[in-house]
Amino acid sequence: MPTTVTAYAAPSAAAPLVKTTIERRDVGAHDVLIDIKYAGVCHSDIHTVRGEWGPREFPLAPGHEIVGIVAEVGPEVTKYKVGDRVGVGCMVNSCGECANCKAGEEQYCAKGMTETYGSVDRDGSITQGGYSTQVVVIEDFVLAIPDGLELDVAAPLLCAGITTYSPLHHWGAGPGKKVAIVGLGGLGHMAVKIAHALGAEVTVLSQTLSKKDAGIALGADHFYATSDPETFAALAGQFDLILNTVSAVIDINAYLSLLALDGALVSVGAPAEPLAVNAFSLIGGRRTFAGSLIGGIRETQEMLNFCAEHKLGSEIELISADQINEAYERVLKSDVRYRFVIDGATIA
Amino acid sequence: MPTTVTAYAAPSAAAPLVKTTIERRDVGAHDVLIDIKYAGVCHSDIHTVRGEWGPREFPLAPGHEIVGIVAEVGPEVTKYKVGDRVGVGCMVNSCGECANCKAGEEQYCAKGMTETYGSVDRDGSITQGGYSTQVVVIEDFVLAIPDGLELDVAAPLLCAGITTYSPLHHWGAGPGKKVAIVGLGGLGHMAVKIAHALGAEVTVLSQTLSKKDAGIALGADHFYATSDPETFAALAGQFDLILNTVSAVIDINAYLSLLALDGALVSVGAPAEPLAVNAFSLIGGRRTFAGSLIGGIRETQEMLNFCAEHKLGSEIELISADQINEAYERVLKSDVRYRFVIDGATIA
Repeated sequence: MPTTVTAYAAPSAAAPLVKTTIERRDVGAHDVLIDIKYAGVCHSDIHTVRGEWGPREFPLAPGHEIVGIVAEVGPEVTKYKVGDRVGVGCMVNSCGECANCKAGEEQYCAKGMTETYGSVDRDGSITQGGYSTQVVVIEDFVLAIPDGLELDVAAPLLCAGITTYSPLHHWGAGPGKKVAIVGLGGLGHMAVKIAHALGAEVTVLSQTLSKKDAGIALGADHFYATSDPETFAALAGQFDLILNTVSAVIDINAYLSLLALDGALVSVGAPAEPLAVNAFSLIGGRRTFAGSLIGGIRETQEMLNFCAEHKLGSEIELISADQINEAYERVLKSDVRYRFVIDGATIA
Repeated sequence: MPTTVTAYAAPSAAAPLVKTTIERRDVGAHDVLIDIKYAGVCHSDIHTVRGEWGPREFPLAPGHEIVGIVAEVGPEVTKYKVGDRVGVGCMVNSCGECANCKAGEEQYCAKGMTETYGSVDRDGSITQGGYSTQVVVIEDFVLAIPDGLELDVAAPLLCAGITTYSPLHHWGAGPGKKVAIVGLGGLGHMAVKIAHALGAEVTVLSQTLSKKDAGIALGADHFYATSDPETFAALAGQFDLILNTVSAVIDINAYLSLLALDGALVSVGAPAEPLAVNAFSLIGGRRTFAGSLIGGIRETQEMLNFCAEHKLGSEIELISADQINEAYERVLKSDVRYRFVIDGATIA
């Protein structure tokens, strides 16, 4: 018998979120039932529930930055016990058998990962996200939140943290490396914190200088306005790695010109329109334009441990669940520093 | 006193090449005078002398796939002596002081390499290429042609060889790797030979199957027609590396979809128009779109040694110098298997 739990969900792509109920499956042998304490609000939640990334079944409760406390475990569960502090990110399952899954890169599962909400689960049901009181997830897709990380500021790490940590780590951000972060929103602010903690020299490229003091406080060494054409002349050929966290269309060739020899520009944001890449921008300097999608479960745990060790939480604005539609409007206006997090106690 | 030598040069961007004379500087302390035996005909020669890659000074003698015999050396020259078999590729100088030059990647010189023809040399003169009887080049930009490589089939290695060897080597083509070569022209046919010799599993992606037998004979394991949409379905997610040797605009997202996790599509050809890259094509699979420009001098020598060891020359069609304009028309129609090479004896 599935359990009925309270959630905030969109009844349709055109409608605001409302308080409602959704079903959670019974706790299976390998499942963990989590009492949700906090759920981060990601820009992609908005794209998804509004049908901007393709049609979805409704009602749909979004939320893939979930932290909470284990309330029950199935008989075969070995990694977690009741009372453990845990998290769930953007995926709750994958085939487990393809080369990518076996390599621990479940986010690139050849059959497609099962996303935390809006995906077809193995039993045919549609997954429902973290804007709810409880969630049931197989233990292999549950992360441990280490001591030293408060639950509320840990929530955004499950998406914004891993989405930036993974490419920074993969492309070698560290001592002696010059790293630029494009955009200082939910993703960008975590990218600055993590790149700084990894030991890189960090430059923020933001539209204006309005967030300069905040960026420096987060750990940036330099801060430039991309609305100033001088910026692109001054920084030409400088960076080993540019992490683009902006989903809007940018002048990609201008940003590529900022890369040093063998430098890489890695996008974790994706505009709906294609980017017009001049092949000469890549050929001159053997430059790379690449993309990166969240991170695997093993790497997500590594990121959480790294953030605990370096005391890196997200900067958050805590909201009650009934403020979610207002929060969405503010996210769309970039009016948040830097992540809204729903207080799970206000969902019930 | 400069020396006057015979050359085939374009009097203007609109004119065919004509037999004429050009000046070569006196042999300086570090210079090598080379009697040119063969000069390969590269598609970029045509773009350049026709002003398609920007305005140039005329008359201009193209040619950057040069092989010959050392006729004279300056007093400080230590690497070469009269009678040595040598080659000159796409560049004849660089600043020597920037980080890229010091790293042996002179092609990415921060101040711009001095190209073999059409560049402003240190003395203010305009460099003139290999469609001539002799050339004077500083020894640091002269390559040794190893025994076991015939001079005529070695000529195209100085551009087509290094342009394909460098990215294949840099991106790890070798045993256990699946490599696709897009296009089977002057660059593509060398890419197939080199990738095969490096031990990779090689697939040719050509517009039609018309060159299939030839491609297999060159060392390809598989051959697919890109005009057949089934090709893209059949090969989805297969390749670790795709080397694009085609300068025309391609459906870049379709080719990116053929890459495995962490795969790279590297362009050495550059269309004038930008390529419309969908960021999702990169994010799904952490894929890379990159570019590569010839190779450094050290790596060019390494490539020549590799080709000598593996008996890899270019497939060539030897022409006399007075056939050059006809050859250009045939290059533009892709009617050459696979590289025209001018017999230096016919230039004088």
